[in-house]
Amino acid sequence: MPHFKITLAYDGRDYVGWQRQLNGTSVQSIVEDALAVLDGRQVVVMGASRTDAGVHALGQVASATLLRDIEGPALVRALNALLPAGIRVSEAIDVPATFHARFDASAKTYRYRIWNHEILDPLERFGVWHVPSPRLDLDAMDAAARLFEGEHDFIAFQASGAVRTSTERSIFSSRVRSAPAMFGGDRNLVEYEVRGDGFLRHMVRTMVGTLVEVGRGRQDASWVPEVLAEKERANVGQTAPACGLFLVAVHYE
Amino acid sequence: MPHFKITLAYDGRDYVGWQRQLNGTSVQSIVEDALAVLDGRQVVVMGASRTDAGVHALGQVASATLLRDIEGPALVRALNALLPAGIRVSEAIDVPATFHARFDASAKTYRYRIWNHEILDPLERFGVWHVPSPRLDLDAMDAAARLFEGEHDFIAFQASGAVRTSTERSIFSSRVRSAPAMFGGDRNLVEYEVRGDGFLRHMVRTMVGTLVEVGRGRQDASWVPEVLAEKERANVGQTAPACGLFLVAVHYE
Repeated sequence: MPHFKITLAYDGRDYVGWQRQLNGTSVQSIVEDALAVLDGRQVVVMGASRTDAGVHALGQVASATLLRDIEGPALVRALNALLPAGIRVSEAIDVPATFHARFDASAKTYRYRIWNHEILDPLERFGVWHVPSPRLDLDAMDAAARLFEGEHDFIAFQASGAVRTSTERSIFSSRVRSAPAMFGGDRNLVEYEVRGDGFLRHMVRTMVGTLVEVGRGRQDASWVPEVLAEKERANVGQTAPACGLFLVAVHYE
Repeated sequence: MPHFKITLAYDGRDYVGWQRQLNGTSVQSIVEDALAVLDGRQVVVMGASRTDAGVHALGQVASATLLRDIEGPALVRALNALLPAGIRVSEAIDVPATFHARFDASAKTYRYRIWNHEILDPLERFGVWHVPSPRLDLDAMDAAARLFEGEHDFIAFQASGAVRTSTERSIFSSRVRSAPAMFGGDRNLVEYEVRGDGFLRHMVRTMVGTLVEVGRGRQDASWVPEVLAEKERANVGQTAPACGLFLVAVHYE
């Protein structure tokens, strides 16, 4: 029984998120259904990250055990032939049966994209948060972003109602920069990239909402250590919309 | 009666092309309907380029005369409030009544995007031509692309059935390069950019189909001057699909 580490990309706008649920089509259910066709029985897929509705992935990782004897490259081709174009498998590697996509992950990288111009490129409208004005101060945002690096209690940055035993997370890298865009000027597209050992529900999106407050000039970079110390949900920025968020990669040791 | 030069971007996948027609929704009809709301009467919009169904625009230009006294920036805001998110007006400039978006254009720039990897980024699937394999030879393609520069008879590169009195066109610049992509390796996204004084129907797409034959190694760069000299539609490459094509800009003297 081969056990696979499967890497996937998807267009989040078509789905209710990674996780199987009753109120719509999830990426997990589509992938499980495709694997069931290949394996002739129901297959369970474990995802490394429960991406929310509308969140995109460039490198989600899932693990699954099959009965059928199949090689990784053949599994990639077979899955992509069955999956809709909005979900693509980029890699399938035969791994030891003990591998678990979620529990074995040592870090994850997320990217968040902001369109910072009054006129939103129509072709980018499903992959950015549109912040039409003012012109964001990227130097201030980057200075604030770097203050997230290190080990902190992120309890103020999780979705209201979420309950986690531990809300301490280590952030290894947290940076803001402008990115090349096809439409308009050089500074229209802003990217935030963050790598850490784990993220609470809505944590990246709330970090982005907080950084945008700094970018707007409503707060200084020093606001970040303040709200981290205060640990009050009400004191941080808004939760940025899901459509700007991309799960870039899941890292394993 | 102010006369406007209006610059627009649009997501071509939603429309049957720029030009108003009976079999679906065109960009022109949507823009004319929005202007009719603002002006209280039917308004005619002249577009610089008749982009085909599925072709995108970053900088289409159109001209229109209004009865209503309105300033350019106010017209931009009013139109964007009425138009769907798949069409955005980036600029409206009050110009002399003699300005004609199509007849006064001195040059146009088009870009064509190719995804050259087996796995297509799900988020790019509406804005590229997917050429999964082989790895295209970009140096050979660029060498071939440069041989389109200059004045040539492009009769072999126009849509079959098209009738134009003159099929001579001047190409000012024609280049192939790799472009940064979010998904996968450095060489996945290939861009072709061409600027010329005018383009026949399907001309850019047929030039791209021809360049891809060179990139695949089926032809040398010297094939370009050969097919230009032969002037036979049957001898050139296939017409590349519309969804990879972007009207980048229309130039005026």
